[in-house]
Parts: sequence; C-alpha cells; structure tokens
Amino acid sequence: MLDALFQPKSIAVIGASNRPLTIGYRIIQNLKDFGYQGPIYPVHPKNPEVHKIKAYPSILKVPGEVDLAHIVVKNTMVPMVMEECGQKGVKFVIINTAGFKEIGGDGIELEKKIVEIGRKHNIRIFGPNCQGIINTDEKVRAYANFTFARPETGYISVLAQSGGVGEVIHQRLVDLGTGTRLYASNGNAADISIPEILQYWATDEKTRVIILHIESLADPRAFMKVALEVTKHKPILGMKTGRTELGARAVVSHTGSLMKADTAIEAVFDKCGIISFRNQEELCQAAIGLATQPVPAGPNVGIITNTGGPGIIATDECIEAGLSLPDISEITRSFLKDHLFAEASVSNPVDVLATAGPKEYGAAIGALLKDQGIDSVMINFITPFFVDCEGVAKEMVRLAQDASKPILAVIMTDKKRKGEVVKIIKDGGIPVYDLPESASRALGAMTKYGEYQRRPDEKIVGFKDVNKVRVKEIIDQAKKEQREFLLAREVIELLEVYKIPVVESVFINNPEDFRQIADQIKYPVVFKVDSQDVVHKSDQGGVVLGINNEQQLLKELNDFRAKFTGPDVRFVVQEYLSGGKEIIIGVNQVEGLGHLIMFGLGGIFVEVLKDVSFKIAPLTEHEARGLIQSTRGFAVLKGVRGEAGVDLNKLTEIILRISQLVTDHPEIRELDLNPVLAYNQSGQTKVVDARIRI
Amino acid sequence: MLDALFQPKSIAVIGASNRPLTIGYRIIQNLKDFGYQGPIYPVHPKNPEVHKIKAYPSILKVPGEVDLAHIVVKNTMVPMVMEECGQKGVKFVIINTAGFKEIGGDGIELEKKIVEIGRKHNIRIFGPNCQGIINTDEKVRAYANFTFARPETGYISVLAQSGGVGEVIHQRLVDLGTGTRLYASNGNAADISIPEILQYWATDEKTRVIILHIESLADPRAFMKVALEVTKHKPILGMKTGRTELGARAVVSHTGSLMKADTAIEAVFDKCGIISFRNQEELCQAAIGLATQPVPAGPNVGIITNTGGPGIIATDECIEAGLSLPDISEITRSFLKDHLFAEASVSNPVDVLATAGPKEYGAAIGALLKDQGIDSVMINFITPFFVDCEGVAKEMVRLAQDASKPILAVIMTDKKRKGEVVKIIKDGGIPVYDLPESASRALGAMTKYGEYQRRPDEKIVGFKDVNKVRVKEIIDQAKKEQREFLLAREVIELLEVYKIPVVESVFINNPEDFRQIADQIKYPVVFKVDSQDVVHKSDQGGVVLGINNEQQLLKELNDFRAKFTGPDVRFVVQEYLSGGKEIIIGVNQVEGLGHLIMFGLGGIFVEVLKDVSFKIAPLTEHEARGLIQSTRGFAVLKGVRGEAGVDLNKLTEIILRISQLVTDHPEIRELDLNPVLAYNQSGQTKVVDARIRI
Repeated sequence: MLDALFQPKSIAVIGASNRPLTIGYRIIQNLKDFGYQGPIYPVHPKNPEVHKIKAYPSILKVPGEVDLAHIVVKNTMVPMVMEECGQKGVKFVIINTAGFKEIGGDGIELEKKIVEIGRKHNIRIFGPNCQGIINTDEKVRAYANFTFARPETGYISVLAQSGGVGEVIHQRLVDLGTGTRLYASNGNAADISIPEILQYWATDEKTRVIILHIESLADPRAFMKVALEVTKHKPILGMKTGRTELGARAVVSHTGSLMKADTAIEAVFDKCGIISFRNQEELCQAAIGLATQPVPAGPNVGIITNTGGPGIIATDECIEAGLSLPDISEITRSFLKDHLFAEASVSNPVDVLATAGPKEYGAAIGALLKDQGIDSVMINFITPFFVDCEGVAKEMVRLAQDASKPILAVIMTDKKRKGEVVKIIKDGGIPVYDLPESASRALGAMTKYGEYQRRPDEKIVGFKDVNKVRVKEIIDQAKKEQREFLLAREVIELLEVYKIPVVESVFINNPEDFRQIADQIKYPVVFKVDSQDVVHKSDQGGVVLGINNEQQLLKELNDFRAKFTGPDVRFVVQEYLSGGKEIIIGVNQVEGLGHLIMFGLGGIFVEVLKDVSFKIAPLTEHEARGLIQSTRGFAVLKGVRGEAGVDLNKLTEIILRISQLVTDHPEIRELDLNPVLAYNQSGQTKVVDARIRI
Repeated sequence: MLDALFQPKSIAVIGASNRPLTIGYRIIQNLKDFGYQGPIYPVHPKNPEVHKIKAYPSILKVPGEVDLAHIVVKNTMVPMVMEECGQKGVKFVIINTAGFKEIGGDGIELEKKIVEIGRKHNIRIFGPNCQGIINTDEKVRAYANFTFARPETGYISVLAQSGGVGEVIHQRLVDLGTGTRLYASNGNAADISIPEILQYWATDEKTRVIILHIESLADPRAFMKVALEVTKHKPILGMKTGRTELGARAVVSHTGSLMKADTAIEAVFDKCGIISFRNQEELCQAAIGLATQPVPAGPNVGIITNTGGPGIIATDECIEAGLSLPDISEITRSFLKDHLFAEASVSNPVDVLATAGPKEYGAAIGALLKDQGIDSVMINFITPFFVDCEGVAKEMVRLAQDASKPILAVIMTDKKRKGEVVKIIKDGGIPVYDLPESASRALGAMTKYGEYQRRPDEKIVGFKDVNKVRVKEIIDQAKKEQREFLLAREVIELLEVYKIPVVESVFINNPEDFRQIADQIKYPVVFKVDSQDVVHKSDQGGVVLGINNEQQLLKELNDFRAKFTGPDVRFVVQEYLSGGKEIIIGVNQVEGLGHLIMFGLGGIFVEVLKDVSFKIAPLTEHEARGLIQSTRGFAVLKGVRGEAGVDLNKLTEIILRISQLVTDHPEIRELDLNPVLAYNQSGQTKVVDARIRI
C-alpha cells in the first residue's frame, strides 16, 4: 500500500532551505503554492523558520506524525537522517539527493546501506536521485516534487523513469489544457519500483489512463506480470527512449543481429497490451482521448466535416492510423438525406456543408452514433462566422452524454475569439484537437487499446508428446564438456524429441559407416561437417549441396576427412529439399526477460528488408499466429499471384514447440532455425539447418 | 503584375451588407478590423451606409479609382456587375460568389462568360468561388477575405487551393505565434492561376517561405516551370490532399496499377524541389524554421541538451528524419572539456547538465557553430529553477546573430511563468519548439530543402544515335490501323532503333519460315504469339518458356498455328535468358503532366511490397540515378551478401533512352518493359518483354 506516499497526511522536508535556488526551498514552495492540505514540517539544523513556516532542528523534534519525508541533505548524511526517520516512525521517504548507484563505486554501497536502514525501520524509500510525486486530488494537493508543471486536476497519471521526459510530458499535458491525477518519477528505484507503483495506480479510481516512460526495465518479468493485469482494465501508454544493452552486446546468432535497440521493450509492451509511442505529442493526444471517451469497439470510424479539405485529410490519416472508413448503412443514408442540406454528401465522410448548424450537426452525429457499422465518430468543425457555433458545440455535448462510442472533435477556429466554442465542448467531456491529423492518430491509438483488450485470454498449452528429460541430458552433457554450441547431431535429436520436423540426416564417420547406409540414400543429398570447431560451416567450406550420386559423395567424404580432423568430427548426409519458402525462426535470450522469439522470411526479406518480428516466450497460439502475420512477407506465405501459400498451421505449431522448448530449457541462450523450408502440404515443412548455443 | 491585387490602394465590396451573417458584411468588417490602409467603398443598391461607411448604389458611382473589387452578388448577376467594373476601370476583382464551374452545366458557361468580360475590359479575375487574399504589410493591411485567422506580420505566405485547408493552416500558424505575410485562396482559378501567384510571390522580398496546398494541378507543366525557378531561391512547402483522377481511371498497364493516388503530384513536387508534407503541423513547424534560419549546408546536426531523456529523443528523431549526428571534432571536444562542468558529456549530443547556465550553454553553442563537421544546431533546454534561464536565452540569441548555421531551440518550460525565456528567444529570431520531435522533423525538412537547392543544374542531354523518324512511322502505321497496342515486332524494332537492348528475336509465320532460320537458333528459346488480339499473352496461353530443341519448337509452332489465327498473327522465337535481376521499367502518361517513368525490381519487390519509384520525364542523369536509388530493392542491385550487383550505368542509360523515347513521341500513352533482366557485365542487360500502348 502506497497510501501514505501518494496521499500523505503530513510532509517533512529534511534539508529545508531559505535559499531560493535550492531543492530544499523549492519543494516547500511547491507544496505551499499547490495548496497542500496537510502540515509541512521543514527540518533545518539552525533556522527557526523556513518559508515562514516553523522549522525543526531534527525530524525527531517534529511534533506530529510524519507520513512522508523528503530528504535533500548531502548523500553521505542520508544514512544518519534515515536512522532518525526510523526512530520517528516516518512511513515513506523521498530521497531527492543524488550520488548513489548512478555514480558507481561508493554510491552503490551507500544505496545498499539506505535500503538496509529502510528495511530495519520499515521505511519505504522512493528514489534516491529522483524528483518525487504529485497528487492533484483536492483533498491532498501534494506537490512533493521540485518540477515546474502546474497541472489542473484530471484523470491522467504519469509515471516516468527519466525525470526529464516525465516533466516534459507533464508540462505538455498542461499546455494542452488537460488535467492530471498522479505523477511519480522514482529515479534509482532502490526500493519502490515501477511495477509496485503501477499496481497501486491500478486501484486508484480516478486514474483512468497511465502514461509510462521507461528507459530500461530492472525486472521485466515482474513488470510484465503487473502490466498485463493493469491493461485489462486501464490503458497504459508507453514511451521508451534510450538504447538497451542489446544493441551493444556481441552477438553470434543471426537472430541477435536482427534485434534493434528497442526490440525487447517493444516486445514487452506488446505482450502486456501497452500502447507504444515514439512521439510525446501523440502520446499526450491519445491519453486525452482515452481519459474522456469509451474505448472503440472496432476500427470503423465515421467522419463528419463541414469543409472538404479537412475531411480528406482526416480520411487519409485515419486509414494510415490503421482505421477503416466503412460505408454508412442505408438507414443512416436515408436519414441524413432527409435531415441535411440537399447538396450535403451523405457518405463517409459525411460533409454537412459549411452552412450546417446545430440541427445538421446533431442529425449527423446522432445518425453515426446509431449506425451499427460505426465504432467511433470524428467531428471536424471549421467555425464559419454565419453559423451558430456555440449551438453546434452544445449539440455535440448533448449527444455525447449517453454515447457508448467515442467522439473526438477537431475544432478549427480562432481560439481567442471563439474560445467559448472550444470550452463548451471540452467541458462537455469531448476531447478537442487542433487538426485532423492529431485526432486520427489519437483515435488510432485508442482503437489499438481496444484490440489489446479484446485479445483472447488464452492459456499456454504445452505439448505432451515431448521428451524434456532427453533434452536436459543433451544440454547437461554439452555443459559438462564446456561446449558453447551443441553439435549438429545433438541439435537434430533435440528437435526430434520435441517433434519439430527436421530433414532426414545420417551421421557417419568414415567410408565404412557410409557403406552400411549407402543403399538407403535417396539422391540428391547435402553433405556437411559436424564439429564444435566449425561454427560457421558454410564459410569454412563444410557444406556441399546437391550431391547426385554415391561416387560424388564418397569423394566429398574423403576430402572432408582430410580437411576436418578432431575427436568430435562427424559428417552428415542430409536429404536435399528444393522449392518451398525459406523461413527463419530464431530465439535470443535477454537478461531478466527470458526468450525473444523471432520470425521472418529468408532471402531478401531478412537480408535486405530486415523484415522480422519478435515476441516474448512462452507464446500463446494467438501470439504465434501474430508473429507470422506481422511480417511484411506474410503475403508471400499466404500466396501471391497464383502461387500457393504455405501451411500456416504447421508453421504455427513449430513456433509453439520452439517456444515450449526454450521455456522448458532456460539454458538455451540462442537458437537459429535457418532455414526452415515451408510447403503447402502439411508434413513436408522441415527444418533444414539449425544451431543452438547454451 | 499582381500589385493592385495584393497591395490594393482602394477596395470596393459589391454586395456589401449590414446583415452580420453575410459575406458582404464580413469582408468589410475584416478590412476594418485589420486596419486596411486604403479607402473602402461598399456598394449597395439602397443603403446610404454600410458598416457606418458611406455606400454607393453602383460601382460606377464610387468617386475614386478602384484597384480591387470584391463581388459577392448572386452568381447570375456577376456578368452585369463585371461589365460595370469594366466601365469603372477596376483592375482586379475577387469573385467570392459560388455557382460557377464547380456546379457544372450552366455554371461552366457562366464562368466562361465572366472570363470573356474580364478579357474585354482588362479586368483580372481572382476566383470565382473563393475566399480572397490577405496582405499583412503595415503599409497595406488588406484583409480582403471572409476567414477568421488574425495573423501578425511575418515572413510566411500561404497559397491554398482548398480554402478550408488554407484557413486551417493559417490559423495554426497564428496559434504557433508566427506571423504571416501574404495569403491567397483562389477557388476555381478561372483567370489568375496558382503559378502566376507563385511567380509574383517569388519577387516579394518579405515572403521568405511559401506554403502551398493543392488538390490537383490545372496545368502541371506551367506549374513546374514556375515552381522549379522559385525553389532555387525560396522554399516552397507543399501539402497535397485528395485523390487525383489517377486512382480511379481504368488502367491496363502494370505501371498504371502501381501508381497511387498521389504519385503524380509527389513526382511533380520532387521534380520542382518542393518539400512535401502530409501533416499540417509538421508543415507549419518547418515553415517557421525556414522563415527564420539559414538553410542547412548538410545533414549533420549537433545537439545540446541539459537532461538526458530529451537528448535521447532528439537523437532518435533526428536520425529518423534522415539527419546524422557526427562525432564532434577533437578541437570542439577539448574546448568543451575546458568550459563545461566536469561531469558534462562532451560528445554528440552534448549534455551540458541541468546546472548549466549562460556560460555553459554559450560555450556549447559557440563550439558547435564553429565545428566544421556540424551543419545545424539543436538546443534542448528544460528550464531548471536554479539556473538563470533568461541569461541562457540571451546567450542563445547573442550567438545566433551572426551564425551562418541554423539554430533551433526546444524550450521545455512552464510557458505561463517562464514566458519571458521563450519570448527572448523568439524575438531573437530563433524558432522555438515545444518538443524535440517537432524540432527534429522541422530540421529534417529544412535539410531536405538544402539538398534540393544543391541538386546539380543538369541539362537534359539527348542521345544522337536514335532513329526518331522510324518510330514515328511505326506509331503512325498503328494509328492508321486504329490499333491501341503496338505489335511485338513493332515494339522490338522501336526499342532497337532507340538503342535499347532487347533479347534476340526472330518472327516467323509458318514451318517454312522456321526452316529458313532453323540452323541459327541457339536453344533454349522462348516461343510467343504476336497479335493485336492477344494482349495478355501469358494468360491466353501464348507464351512457352524453355524450349530445348527443334522438335519441341515445331510442335509448339503447330499448336500455336491452330490456336491463334488472324491476318496479323506472327510467332516469335526469342533467346531465353536465365539468371539476372528482374527489373520493371514503366511509363504512364498523365493528362497535362506528360510521362511518369516508373522503376522497380520484379518479383516480390513489385508484387508484394509495391516497391517502385516514379519521376517525371524528361529525366536528367541525376534523376535517372535517383529513380533507381530510391527503391528499397536498390540494395539488391548494388549486391548483397556476396552476390554481385548489376551494371547500374547500363540501367541508367536504358532509363534515359526510354525517357527520350516517350518525350520524342508523346503519342506513347503507356509502356512496360517487364521484365528487363539486368546483369553484372555490361552489354548483357536486355529487355525480355515489352508492351506499348498509344
């Protein structure tokens, strides 16, 4: 419970100051300016007053109970102050002071120490090296922070890892005339974590939307557990900045090299149903829509406009935001024909004409709200001087009252002289946008959240026909021999016992072995070396394709025997597949997160277009299908220009089995199935080459 | 000369009114409110006064000279009023009245009539069915328009085909606190055209940037001629909305089907060096940058920030906007080490730290302005309460005074309480953005303009070794026979006489012909039918690939002879090429514009990814190379993963010869070279199949 942090009944500021340019001064000023509803206790070693409020020489001298104490003293003095807070019974501290984990060395030790002191005294720590919190609730008005944004009371809460970005977003919401509810930026997060705050905010009724900025996740699994639950009921709008470690770390696998800096966090967002943004403006605009409107039940938007140009822009932008503009129903059409001007355009977008007043706008809005093929309504209104614009505004608000569909308004006007129009609409709870572009993008994001909410709540169903024990043995053996890569024969067996189809392969060592299998071989075949010393087989001349007869194969065997020597060297004769679509399935383990599964089409899709998608294991069937569908090459898999597509069910099953394999065996660090050859007839799709790193 | 339109010494309003909701009232109100510097002459049949200004019963009764007259009477009365204007010697009329060409039928005739009257009396017509013009110059202050935006005086001029979009953009500039210079929205453009206005604005010294909105171009060639000249000296920022006819018209050719609704206008913008936008906000933000700052000499941006998060966002967004963040020079680095705080980050972005004041910001800005590797400077500034923010602002302005590189400022602050900081910077001529995202996109567009300006000023060089006369004969023959498509034998000859390499082809009619050439044939070959009745050869069973011997070929010949009959039927034996990269080169003629040349890679690039580029003929060599380079598949042509690329010079030459062919012969409406097979060795690249429609 973080009640005493976000709804503190009293706040002390240890390190309060009368010098205006200090944080100890600024926090008290902010608390006063914002109208904090509880007592403020400045703590200062000497001054009897700070900010004209009675000050105390130590937290121990403060008369009342202290829910929350800011600590802004020098970093080395923080442990002593914490001990005093412990004696006093302070419930929460916000340590604004920097100079802890982020400076490394002694700072790390110091941070450990204060966490220990906190545990000992049952003090929860927010920070250190952080801004603080804000609660705009009329009963609280806690501006326990040194930032400058001055929010009105509203429904959007902002949680930011980077104080800078958090402050910029918060200020932007203020600029856009939108209220906020709670704010938190917890810096080093030594104790109170982002998931813990999220969980608490999920229960805060007046928080309708959560904006979340993160640079990296300390504990992705804990984060996902919480976020997945929160987004079922409350939208989280995520903005990630900064580069993860991923881009930098050395990668051997193909999958690894295809991961971008933000691949992992994007995959986390998607897994949790967090709407992802790269642009703070669009983030804020979408938050405003979600804070005031119902979630769209689908992608079908109905657009109303009173001039052609903006209607066309709205249409273009909605389509690009992934929305659809369906035809309006016949009932709607005939209703509009009766209620709009004769020259009005009664299709989607509905052009009510510049002369349209409250009656016409009302008819159009009402009709689209009733039309069962429409999920959301966007109203464009350029305010003509010859129209009762306030009347139009009031009509919008009246119709929005009981609407179960979201309504967004684009009001293009001189805000100075027509401010009243905008005010009526905003006060009526309809979000107002300056341009169709921003409204369309906001609606796109709102609709995306609806899609997330409607995702089937699938359980991960494991395949029972796998041999987990045997895989464990193979991995243990490799570990025992300190091998990083499994041998090809191990990889093939491992895939086979997980019922993942692999090309037929026979391992041989010498001409003697060969003679024993000679009459079973169906040519053409592929011939490869298998040895832990030969990691890049093709580059090292260890692969020969398209061998057509016994004589050729024997020659290659002899060549290989001369070229590759060593106790573990084996040679493998493999079935040679032709045709089929080249697929790459990869897995890369990410610290703290688990396995990222990659899917892509081979050839130019991967080589030139880097057209791959990632999701976090374990996958549901819905996710496995989504992984395939979200590549641009998906069209090829479905079949283009008369060419047959591939068996998507088989591919989905292979992905799900791989997901189970790596989840069962966290020792697997990287896995590349490259290529899998996929065919139309089920049963034929097979893994042609694979590599596993443990 | 449009002086009397944009700088009218007197304005009459014919159809002036005392009723507030009429255009005749509104225009006079706007002229008065905006402080028009000349006399206003209301014309009203009865009222002695309109808007408390003396009114006249007819334009003929107006005492002084009339530079400009608004006409807002009923459409059918316009001709009579125009005649009176003629008698009076009015120089320009703005016909706001609607009901002309746009309503079709009688309206078209009425529009023709007023144009005739205008010619007769030497009256230039702006409109009809239009808004009007605005000039904010202190000496003019002409708000000859019925819109609501109230601009300050500035350097951005707005020219809009759609009055609605024009007004929205104009208002947005006002909202962003930016002045404008001239405004025009000329509706039906019966006389004064967009190119004419552009040409006039090009000579207006105080117009530094032109914003242009168009839906379609009445005369693309005239537009291009003017725009290409204007953009050499003055940026034009183009926004296109609406769908051209192209998407709708029936297309037979592959090229046609790959054209999007805005392909033609995009190609026009690119040809003219007009920066293209799809988003009004980004358009306005870029205009503000270009109106106040020098054009970047290159893509290299230096970023300064005082907090990490926004610096990272700025970096990401600049890269995505096509800019580069080069390392700063060693001199810059060591200078910054001496002049910034010890913990500051002296790389790009330069993090001067939150504690940085005027001195540190000054050092960083100065150093980046001096660094020869940096073309533009973006300053991010979150205003900390403990810093002299006004001082930082003043330092920015001081350093920007003589800077030859553009400086953009992202000021993240509480504008209500820190408005002074923003004001100092804006007044100092530095554009201020709310977020790093918008500044980055603006800078991206500014840099794009710089690229356009630096394009080589190439002449179109024609190949002399072509036989123009022979092609004319071929086309004339087909026209005479009323054939829409040229026969294959004609197409091949036509390409050959333009020295465009085609696969070797022999045309035969019967087994007798075949025997004559039998011993020259090198197998494998392709066998095709050639007849005007067989347009889709493959679909109609008229193509057989990979014929390996004489017997097979004879069999196909007999089959074809049975299947395809008609006087024009011929059969063609063609060299069968294998390997090579499939290329598609297409041409589509667009009404009024000329030929659009398309380039793309065959296979999935075209089929799945629609990865093609278009440019307008005739092409310079620079443009032909650009056409190839701007496809995503270009990487494949350069060569990927050890595979050889293709001979790009040969491909460029083929494109240039095609450009010349269609320019020499405007009768060619569509042309598809599909495929061209391109190889590494020059000389091998050849057209395999082609179709020409006249």
